[in-house]
Amino acid sequence: MTRPSSVPPPVTAVLDASSRWLPARLGEVEQLLRGAIADHGELLGADAAATLDAGGKRLRPMLVLLCAGPERDGEAVRAAAATELVHMATLVHDDVLDDAPLRRGLPTVAATSGRDRAVAAGDLLFSRAFALLADAGDARSVALLADASVALARGELAQRRDAFDLGIDEERYLYRCRLKTARLFECACLLGREQERLREFGAGIGLAFQLLDDVLDVSGPPERTGKARGTDLLDGTVTLPLIEAAKSDPSIREVDLHALDAAGAEALCDRIAATGALERVRARAIEMVANAKAALEKAEFDAEQRHLLALVADGVVQRYS
Amino acid sequence: MTRPSSVPPPVTAVLDASSRWLPARLGEVEQLLRGAIADHGELLGADAAATLDAGGKRLRPMLVLLCAGPERDGEAVRAAAATELVHMATLVHDDVLDDAPLRRGLPTVAATSGRDRAVAAGDLLFSRAFALLADAGDARSVALLADASVALARGELAQRRDAFDLGIDEERYLYRCRLKTARLFECACLLGREQERLREFGAGIGLAFQLLDDVLDVSGPPERTGKARGTDLLDGTVTLPLIEAAKSDPSIREVDLHALDAAGAEALCDRIAATGALERVRARAIEMVANAKAALEKAEFDAEQRHLLALVADGVVQRYS
Repeated sequence: MTRPSSVPPPVTAVLDASSRWLPARLGEVEQLLRGAIADHGELLGADAAATLDAGGKRLRPMLVLLCAGPERDGEAVRAAAATELVHMATLVHDDVLDDAPLRRGLPTVAATSGRDRAVAAGDLLFSRAFALLADAGDARSVALLADASVALARGELAQRRDAFDLGIDEERYLYRCRLKTARLFECACLLGREQERLREFGAGIGLAFQLLDDVLDVSGPPERTGKARGTDLLDGTVTLPLIEAAKSDPSIREVDLHALDAAGAEALCDRIAATGALERVRARAIEMVANAKAALEKAEFDAEQRHLLALVADGVVQRYS
Repeated sequence: MTRPSSVPPPVTAVLDASSRWLPARLGEVEQLLRGAIADHGELLGADAAATLDAGGKRLRPMLVLLCAGPERDGEAVRAAAATELVHMATLVHDDVLDDAPLRRGLPTVAATSGRDRAVAAGDLLFSRAFALLADAGDARSVALLADASVALARGELAQRRDAFDLGIDEERYLYRCRLKTARLFECACLLGREQERLREFGAGIGLAFQLLDDVLDVSGPPERTGKARGTDLLDGTVTLPLIEAAKSDPSIREVDLHALDAAGAEALCDRIAATGALERVRARAIEMVANAKAALEKAEFDAEQRHLLALVADGVVQRYS
């Protein structure tokens, strides 16, 4: 089976198990993404384009395509690419906000081309996403993606407002994750097919994905995550591992996040890990994925697509196990 | 005639000359804008909301409404608000890029709430724009606005790439202005009504608007512009007044823009003004407006709306005379 060269390992299981149609569609998505970036490669800077092109797991496009099924081609491919472009835009802007030097082990757009260009580059990716969807001529899809983008920005604003506040509780954390991550996963599924169970499925694995990502920030190792341990802590982002850890070890709440340096962040990661918080958060995420799969079981849906979606859900967990 | 309280003086002539329908429509646009901002006032911060709310000339919404005419209400009002939201989003992001302390004499979102929040706030306004348009259910409008947004971001990237380069020529400058300013004016007209002459009209006054804005950056006075003279120069943005001035006084091209401080920027403004470049650029802009009005004359269009659009064009010039 041919596999688009830029599709990374975590999706291997899905591609291997899938019938012939999925890899080809993902390849078309890659081409649209490349076009959206390379078109302006000169302006974005070669490094920046390379960083974006290095790609991620393409989880969101996969959700769009799998929910849409093999019958729907051009329209679903565009929706898949548009969803990934919005995701990329937020990554580029997040890196501006966080002053992040690395993303997926490569220099960020903000680091290579400057924060200035990174803001504009994010805007460009964002605009391209809507241009792509609108060209397909479907206002419902545009509305879905625009609403998810509103949620993303609100989640980002909420995270900035909460920064360095160790009084943030689990409920507030989950609210932020829903806005910042789960809504775009949900949107990806609904862009594929409007069905309540699929919405539930998308939201569930999106939330689990964020929880596991936050565990990874504490657990590392950097060779695997492509960034230093405790990056969130240095940015003042209070996540569930820290909230959970403070329940067992209230002295964690006394830490002054503003005063943390890289070594201090690593030490705090160790303290969090010592409470067993990482295992507890991981267990929560695994439970969320199980619930998402249960919702999927109830969806009126083609058996093969359901099977492939379940593999995507497993992939979210496996990547972090 | 009732006039929405937040509509500023420059549009007075248009409102005074207009029949009853325009002020009411502009009032509806203001309400949509307020909703899009106030909805998240808590997150954006009261200062930020105030800055955005302080409003500008609402030129772009006026173009949408005037081109659409009195028969089209809800849809045109949404398109008008969406266009202004995209404009607002770019202002917020521009202020992040430029580290600008003031906009229209008030502190910028970047200055009051931090660059972090300003990036997210811009993203929010941007997403809201597309959500608003998509709700109206018109994919053609979304495509128009998305394409204009792509142009805006490309213009911004081009400006960043050109920064501090005194070799930038007029052609390159005009190319940037078309992307960064004229395209959204053009889009505003086309959102109102798809007609080639209106596109020409919008592009023409958009370009003139940018030229005059760049003159104002050099001429000041700050009491009127709400920002210090030579702000563009301090950002390394080479504009037509400087390019024009260097034709008469080539020594201007020797200036090291990187080394400029506020006093140096003021002194450079004086040198530019001394060459007569400001009058020459102003004359170019006035000619562009005249051409735009000539295009308008040829448009198949209601006479009253045509008259009002011509007043908007005059307003662009008058504001800067």
